[in-house]
Amino acid sequence: MLSRNLTMLTDFYELTMGNGYFEEGLHEQVVYFDMFFRSVPDKGGFAIMAGVEQLIQYLENLKFTKKDIEFLQKKETFSDGFLDYLANFRFACDVWAVPEGTPIFPNEPIVKVKGPLLQAQMIETMVLLAINHQSLIATKANRIVRAAQGKPVIEFGSRRAQGPDGAVLGARAAYIGGVVGTACVLADQLYGVPSSGTMAHSWVQLFPSEYEAFRVYAKHYPDKCLLLIDTYHVLKSGIENAIKVFDDVLKPLGKRPVGIRIDSGDVAYLSKKVRARLDEAGYEDCKIFVSNSLDENIISDLAIQGAKIDAYGVGERLITSKSDPVFGGVYKLVAVESEGKVIPKIKISANVEKITTPGVKKLVRFYRKESGKAIADLLTLEGEIIDTSKPYSLFNPYYTWKRVTVENYEVRDLLVPIFVKGKRVYESPKLADIRAYCMEEIEKLWDEVRRLENPHRYFVDLSEDLWQIKHTLLEEYSEGDY
Amino acid sequence: MLSRNLTMLTDFYELTMGNGYFEEGLHEQVVYFDMFFRSVPDKGGFAIMAGVEQLIQYLENLKFTKKDIEFLQKKETFSDGFLDYLANFRFACDVWAVPEGTPIFPNEPIVKVKGPLLQAQMIETMVLLAINHQSLIATKANRIVRAAQGKPVIEFGSRRAQGPDGAVLGARAAYIGGVVGTACVLADQLYGVPSSGTMAHSWVQLFPSEYEAFRVYAKHYPDKCLLLIDTYHVLKSGIENAIKVFDDVLKPLGKRPVGIRIDSGDVAYLSKKVRARLDEAGYEDCKIFVSNSLDENIISDLAIQGAKIDAYGVGERLITSKSDPVFGGVYKLVAVESEGKVIPKIKISANVEKITTPGVKKLVRFYRKESGKAIADLLTLEGEIIDTSKPYSLFNPYYTWKRVTVENYEVRDLLVPIFVKGKRVYESPKLADIRAYCMEEIEKLWDEVRRLENPHRYFVDLSEDLWQIKHTLLEEYSEGDY
Repeated sequence: MLSRNLTMLTDFYELTMGNGYFEEGLHEQVVYFDMFFRSVPDKGGFAIMAGVEQLIQYLENLKFTKKDIEFLQKKETFSDGFLDYLANFRFACDVWAVPEGTPIFPNEPIVKVKGPLLQAQMIETMVLLAINHQSLIATKANRIVRAAQGKPVIEFGSRRAQGPDGAVLGARAAYIGGVVGTACVLADQLYGVPSSGTMAHSWVQLFPSEYEAFRVYAKHYPDKCLLLIDTYHVLKSGIENAIKVFDDVLKPLGKRPVGIRIDSGDVAYLSKKVRARLDEAGYEDCKIFVSNSLDENIISDLAIQGAKIDAYGVGERLITSKSDPVFGGVYKLVAVESEGKVIPKIKISANVEKITTPGVKKLVRFYRKESGKAIADLLTLEGEIIDTSKPYSLFNPYYTWKRVTVENYEVRDLLVPIFVKGKRVYESPKLADIRAYCMEEIEKLWDEVRRLENPHRYFVDLSEDLWQIKHTLLEEYSEGDY
Repeated sequence: MLSRNLTMLTDFYELTMGNGYFEEGLHEQVVYFDMFFRSVPDKGGFAIMAGVEQLIQYLENLKFTKKDIEFLQKKETFSDGFLDYLANFRFACDVWAVPEGTPIFPNEPIVKVKGPLLQAQMIETMVLLAINHQSLIATKANRIVRAAQGKPVIEFGSRRAQGPDGAVLGARAAYIGGVVGTACVLADQLYGVPSSGTMAHSWVQLFPSEYEAFRVYAKHYPDKCLLLIDTYHVLKSGIENAIKVFDDVLKPLGKRPVGIRIDSGDVAYLSKKVRARLDEAGYEDCKIFVSNSLDENIISDLAIQGAKIDAYGVGERLITSKSDPVFGGVYKLVAVESEGKVIPKIKISANVEKITTPGVKKLVRFYRKESGKAIADLLTLEGEIIDTSKPYSLFNPYYTWKRVTVENYEVRDLLVPIFVKGKRVYESPKLADIRAYCMEEIEKLWDEVRRLENPHRYFVDLSEDLWQIKHTLLEEYSEGDY
């Protein structure tokens, strides 16, 4: 799973184009592609970058095997020269990416590729797949984590994930986004996402009685005693049997229970009743876990109802991002090199929001010096330097009369090199460090950007020079035939 | 990808329960689990079984490596005896499954497992994951294929899939559900889903002009000339340049174009205009491909508008089943063996639809002899034999006065053995044969079950004997404390 060769996980048209470029002698032309996305899932205020480590692994393992070449040969579509090129393929691109865990915004480059046309084009499918998937899940997980207001959220969704990678990489991304752990053992083994779990209803059904099922569990796990109390009836039997077992098994050992879990029914009502009963029995420290088709909306609603819940287990609605299961990242040509010059390219569209920003760019985040809060992101030309000792005038790229001059700010380049001429130059931080960094960076966003409903739009502006290039190209095209 | 060891892709609680059963000496007790689902995605009339081959591969590869055992040891949760058991794990269950491509319905067992408690429990996560994912995508793909009314649908979604498996296994499932091919090369290489593709907008952008981009493509692919005509302006430039290239490049070679593709804009309007222009230019045989955020609803609506479309490329909305991205299969204990006797188990719920059907069951489909149409499915006890020479009285398990007596019918056992005592006994058909079988079986459903909106409910009934067992258990529980 860690080092699969996914070279053939590409759209067929990447290869027909590659073959065409090769045959035309265009395949070594240096080009620039940007990956960006156009809207945040669930109409949120920001997304979270994730999947960079898997993108790196894909790029490091890029290699067409003999079998791959034979398979492609049989398609009777590709020239022998092109297949030879593939057989001897050596990745040679420069790649930049925004580090995992960084809050990201629409229309800014989050991955940037420079390299031979054939190569930069061919990796499109996996660049998008790797980043789209994990950014989707990290973003969704963080929405749920924010709704939980500091109470731990655990990822429970493997069984409803879209394939094994959906489960395992999904758990990885969810951890980046702030869940405290997962039920998925393999995600722990491969990536260090803390795994945990206790019992299913079948455990309770298998014993002659619920009491007996709880008693046996408590006996074997006296330090990790968390009982599932809704197999029969939470109030009439589950909680009473749990308390009896805490008294009968744990108390004599001097142990305290970890908690109880409710997986069905009216959990707002039940949690209050169960809390009262636990407190009455002297188990004020016994935590209440809930896990029944939860998402950020239901968790927010449970809080409004004053539900007494200490931790949430979230399954299918997190691991598939059920309410919005697609992260719409795209990969667009933004420049080509020709006779030593970089020529910006633009993709026109009748929908102005879909017009791309041409040119080779930097992505800069402005932070306030005193508060550390993020002010806005700025796309500049690659060579532009921002003198932070001077005020900087940011303006809205669509409504250019909207301007703001910032002072006392710091800037940070968000795109970091991960490959230089095909060689990996970046070491991913440990997953727990990515997660901690993510939590810190989210703290730097204003509350208004972080809220779940109708968030404030965080601005991604263009520098004066970049704006000029875009508008020159736009005018060129609108003067022409189209 | 084909033979990964996914043994550790399990929920942690499967292992805490396993350890508990082992320590209690219960791990060899023979138990029965059923997998079933409760509702069809998108409120459809039926789902399509898929993922059995991946389930088989998982079960065949079940093995805890030394590293796995060391990893689990560090959790300080499991006994040495249990870890020894895992280290020497040999799968020993009997497993039945409904063959891939079969239409399936809520509340019927689609996978059935008999075996030692520890093992039958431990495989839960992957049984559900494998079947849930691919059944979801096969079901969604078939909705889209039905909406296309015989016009080919091609799967295009890799870049937006939920992880590499989401792309590749998703393409496999989509093919079972009736798409004619995929853009995903790896799905072709691994599973034989026919792959194809032509060009992206970047191809067109890279050449000095659209005409030049088309000319080069036609030159290299004179037999497979399919041009993407919406990079600049479909009507003012795209279609005109395409026709010019057909005339300039293909005609002298005596070749005909395959088609043109439109990937943006008002495709209903554009397709009609483009059709007229192609016909006028003598390219009546040139097909129009469309691919822009399509799903079954948009495709149906395009048909209503009289759009002139010959084939559909469908991306993110298919590969994630965007409108309903979760297939809610569950895995429930239905019986245990004790002192040589099989004791049915039931899971009670306040929601009557969630009460499980206990016991070891067969799943039988009734077909009309003359028309071949499917009448209903029936769950019976394992030993029950249906004498097809006699009329059979089917009744609604909730409203038992609703009865129908069928004559002139045939029956078919839908659950086929795939493992016997841990040994694989089933060879999956070729994927193309699974797809053909799926199309045939769907033809056997009434139109009313197949329609996309408000389909007729196909009945899944219980035999008299099975119904009796269920009701005896229900009454037992309702007389008791709960």
